[in-house]
Formats: sequence, C-alpha cells, structure tokens
Amino acid sequence: MNATGTESPLPVGHADIAAAAARLEGHAHRTPVLTSRTVDARCGAKVWFKCENFQRMGAFKFRGAFNALSQLTPEQRRAGVLTYSSGNHAQAVALAGSLLGLKTVIVMPADAPRVKLEATRGYGAEVVTYDPRTAKREELAATIARERGMTVIPPYDHAHVVAGQGTAAKELIEEAGALDYLLVPCGGGGLLSGCAVAASHWSPGCKVIGVEPEAGDDATRSFRTKTLQRCEHADTIADGARTPSLGAITFPLVLHYVHDMLTVNDTELLRSMFWIWERMKMVVEPTGALGAAALLEGKLAARHEFKGKRIGVLVSGGNADFKALCRLI
Amino acid sequence: MNATGTESPLPVGHADIAAAAARLEGHAHRTPVLTSRTVDARCGAKVWFKCENFQRMGAFKFRGAFNALSQLTPEQRRAGVLTYSSGNHAQAVALAGSLLGLKTVIVMPADAPRVKLEATRGYGAEVVTYDPRTAKREELAATIARERGMTVIPPYDHAHVVAGQGTAAKELIEEAGALDYLLVPCGGGGLLSGCAVAASHWSPGCKVIGVEPEAGDDATRSFRTKTLQRCEHADTIADGARTPSLGAITFPLVLHYVHDMLTVNDTELLRSMFWIWERMKMVVEPTGALGAAALLEGKLAARHEFKGKRIGVLVSGGNADFKALCRLI
Repeated sequence: MNATGTESPLPVGHADIAAAAARLEGHAHRTPVLTSRTVDARCGAKVWFKCENFQRMGAFKFRGAFNALSQLTPEQRRAGVLTYSSGNHAQAVALAGSLLGLKTVIVMPADAPRVKLEATRGYGAEVVTYDPRTAKREELAATIARERGMTVIPPYDHAHVVAGQGTAAKELIEEAGALDYLLVPCGGGGLLSGCAVAASHWSPGCKVIGVEPEAGDDATRSFRTKTLQRCEHADTIADGARTPSLGAITFPLVLHYVHDMLTVNDTELLRSMFWIWERMKMVVEPTGALGAAALLEGKLAARHEFKGKRIGVLVSGGNADFKALCRLI
Repeated sequence: MNATGTESPLPVGHADIAAAAARLEGHAHRTPVLTSRTVDARCGAKVWFKCENFQRMGAFKFRGAFNALSQLTPEQRRAGVLTYSSGNHAQAVALAGSLLGLKTVIVMPADAPRVKLEATRGYGAEVVTYDPRTAKREELAATIARERGMTVIPPYDHAHVVAGQGTAAKELIEEAGALDYLLVPCGGGGLLSGCAVAASHWSPGCKVIGVEPEAGDDATRSFRTKTLQRCEHADTIADGARTPSLGAITFPLVLHYVHDMLTVNDTELLRSMFWIWERMKMVVEPTGALGAAALLEGKLAARHEFKGKRIGVLVSGGNADFKALCRLI
C-alpha cells in the first residue's frame, strides 16, 4: 500500500517474489540459515545469517538471473541473452543460461581477473572483452544485443531480477520466523529492494536496513536526500558494491520499503569478514560481509535499539579473491 | 566380533559410541553434512562431507573431550582435569570443562601461537607454559596432576575420547545412509579408530580409510607392518597430524577396523584445502582437509575402485591460521 492507501504502483510486489520462489524451486539452493552462540553473546541479540555464499555459483545473483531468464518468451530464448558484468552477475547469467539451454554472452573488461573470465566461460557463456579505456560496456552490450537480437539482462535494475533476489529474504523469514531487523548489503539495490519487499509482507514490522561501503555511499545519500546520488569508481574492497547508483526500479523501492541505510569503512568490513572466516568457518567475500559488519562493528547500535531483538543478516556471496585478500592480512 | 567369533576384547565398541552420542546430545553440535555437485562431477561418485569444522571450538575434538569429562566421578570432578596440547584438544578440554563446571589446566609450550594461548584461556582454562627446549610436556603434566590430584585426559589414547570421536561417523551415516568408503584424517588415530568402530556397526561393509600427511606417515607404516612405527617432529603443514605415533588403544583398533591407509603430501593437501575454501566456501584447516585431499588428488583412485560409489569424507576441523596460510598462497 502506498501513502494514498491504494495498491502500490511499484514494479515489484510480494506476489512477484512468491512466483519467483516457485520458479527457483529445484534450481536454486535453499541456502542454510546459520546461528552462532558467539555472535548472539557478542551482540546481545538473536541473529540469523542467511548464507547466500553457499548459493550456486557462490552468490545470491543466481536467484535473479534464473528468475529473469526463465520468463523469456520462446523467441527470446532462441536468440539468447546478454549482460555486462565483471562480477557475480556474469556467472549467474552464464549458469542460469546453461541450465535453461540458452545462449549467453557476457561483456567483460579485458583486464578482468583471468579467474573470473575463465569461471564465466566455464559456466558455458561466450565472453566478449573490451578495452575499458576506450569503450563503454553498456554501448558495446547494446550494439551486440541489437546485432544478434539478444535480450539484455542488467545486473539489478530489472523487475524480474529484483523479485528473484527477494526470495532470499522470504526463505530466511520462513526459517527464522518474524524478524525485528534485517541487514542487507547494498550495491545497485537489487538484493536490498527485493528483500525489503519480501520482509514487508512476510515479516511486517521488520525494519530492513541497507549497508554500503563508506567510500561508495551513493545509496545512503540517495536515501537521505530522496534524490538519486551517484558515486563513480568507489574506492572500496567491496567490489560488488562499486555500482555508481541505485537504478530506476530499485531507487523507488528502496525509498518505499527500506527503513534506514548504514555504511562501514573497508577496515571495519575486512575485520568483520575475517572474523566470520575465523569464527564461523565460512568464506564470505567483502561485499557479502557488509550486513554482518554493520552489526559487529556497532553501526546498527549507533542508530537503533536492537538489544534482545531478532536480527536477520543477509550474507550475499562468497566469491573471495584469496590472493588479493591475503595481501591485506 | 574378532577372528575367533567371540565378542571383541578391544576397548571401544559401538555401544560405547551410542552411549557417547547420548551424552553429547544438546552439548555438541550435530554438524551439517554437505554435498557438492562439483565434487560429485569431478570424482564420478556421490560424496558426503561431515563438517566438524562447524563443531564447537572448531573441531571434532570437543566430542571426545566432553565424553571423557562427563564420565568423571564426583571426586575427580572436584579436583579437575589436565591435558597437554598446543592444538584443538586443548580448547576442547577447556570448553568441555567450562560447560561441566570443572577446573581445567592445559600444559602448552611457551612458544605456542599467542592466539592459541589466548583462545584456550578464553574458554576458561588455566594455561601452564613450559620451555620445550628444556622440559617434556608429559612429565610436567604428570607432576602437576600428581600435585593437584587432577585427572589427565590425553588427546587420543583414551577409550572415552575415542568413543566420543566415533559419534561423528555415526551421525554422518544416519544422515547420508550406508557408505561404501569413509575417508578420515589420522594423527594419533582417535578420530580414525572411533569412526571405524562406528562404521563397522552402522554401515557394515563400509571401507574406512585413514589419511595421513606423507611426511608423518607413521600410522600408514604401522598399519602395513602391523608393528607400531614412530615419526618424530613430522615436517608437515598438517599440525594436527604431527603426533609421533598411534597409541596403545588406537593402534589395535586401527589394525582391527581400518581397511587401508593413504598419504598426501603438503602441496596436494594445500591445493585441496584451498579448493574447499574457494568452491565449497568453508574454512577447513590443513589437517581437516586430509580426507578430502585423498579423494580430490586421486589417492583413493590409485588403490580403490570407487566410481559410482557412496563416499563419506570426515572434515575434522577449521581452526586455520590465516596469517601462516596466506604466506603460502
């Protein structure tokens, strides 16, 4: 419901998420929800971690990609899909395409880590590289899509992608029960807005809070000013949250459904990330630890009274670059 | 049953493991059993990982320690317990003692990593350090135990410790069903012999195989020659398997119940360990990856026909020293 009491005109509602959940069944993992006595004792609250680092291809992105690709028309399926990403969305589209028997093309910068190029090819995608100094990925993608008649599936600003990501929060609430707070990493806002829509329906009263890296705080500023802000080339270890801004679809959803935004700096983020590796024995990538860092580093405590409350934390992915991270230890 | 058809005279039987399981209920975690499509595809078999890296204090050792401490007499409980260990057994005894309200003393070398000394103190134990150049830990432990009337709980050569460790295999079989093979890391043989006793009863026909580091292959040589062999100060990254030999209790159990022994070198072990970190998103310590390495590095394939079979892999612990391991990446 929006402010006038009529049905929300926003592009994603809980019914879209329920439909996405049905589409994902048997294809996406229903990832584990973990608890930790140590975390509960440290925070003075009851905390549930939704572990999308254990999702197929290692991140929540598979949910949105599969939900989007599985709704293409037969004609669109024949022509295949295209996306631009050097991160988890690339592998998500490649894997979803492979499972659904669709041709996929991923536009990636030529200087992307070899391991990412190979992983994306390993999932069956055709990788088209470009020189990021001379070409724009969106333009190159649009040209190829036009030439080959392919459908572009953007990383977050797409209603089917958002609805797919929201299924993570739906599953978390089904497992943990109603929550008082839900902390969600925020890059382009696909996961955050999808989870906020889900929580508003399956756990009404739950305060959904987005968490961004301090050096890429565009969504936080957009949220507070209610005007879309940008942050180009954010200098943060959280590579999944370097997106320059929220999108045309995700920004209004964030404004409508999200309760607050928090930021953490890279030192805090890495400290929390390694703490999760060391104490919870699970590998989480920097972006994936944003929600946990807001809790463990006292960012939630600074603005919200959460002692004794029920807190969900979305751990969004585990595709960590060990070599790069080891240099930081 | 032994070769003469009478009840085995060995010091640990399946009934001891069933009793240990009842004692551990509500105290030890029933750790998750994970599967991986990637592993199954890579190996051509169905593989279940029993994840004791998610056990309390990060390793299976809690099972044996809790089972042993919970069987002490009221008098023994009043005097407290003592052990010598610079590894997971130290923290296991400290935590079990704290949960049961017992005083614990851990004898550790003064040059043990500060993080391990602090973790052991953090679980409530009194840590007594010694200079490993001038003192023997067993002698110091015996002296303190005598002076204070404390009971010594050794790391593996104790029937109650072995029975406790065996509960890990019991749980794995309950979850996965009957197995054809079970791969278990081997140091002093507490986990291996306990799991082999459990498998012989709950999954008869399952071939239990111990896995050691190549540089510390005393148990493999003991198994093949049927004479106890030693290997002092084994130069391996698998610190939990640097124990010099099997024990008086574990050696006969290994001879009776274990089907084969395999070794992996440190390069193979680290490759498998990081593969598990990267692909399965879980943190496992080098020793904890021994069983998985035997499978992933083709050691099992070299001696056994396992294609299409049902394989259990005991992942024994996750207390990895990130700083040390990062130097090796």
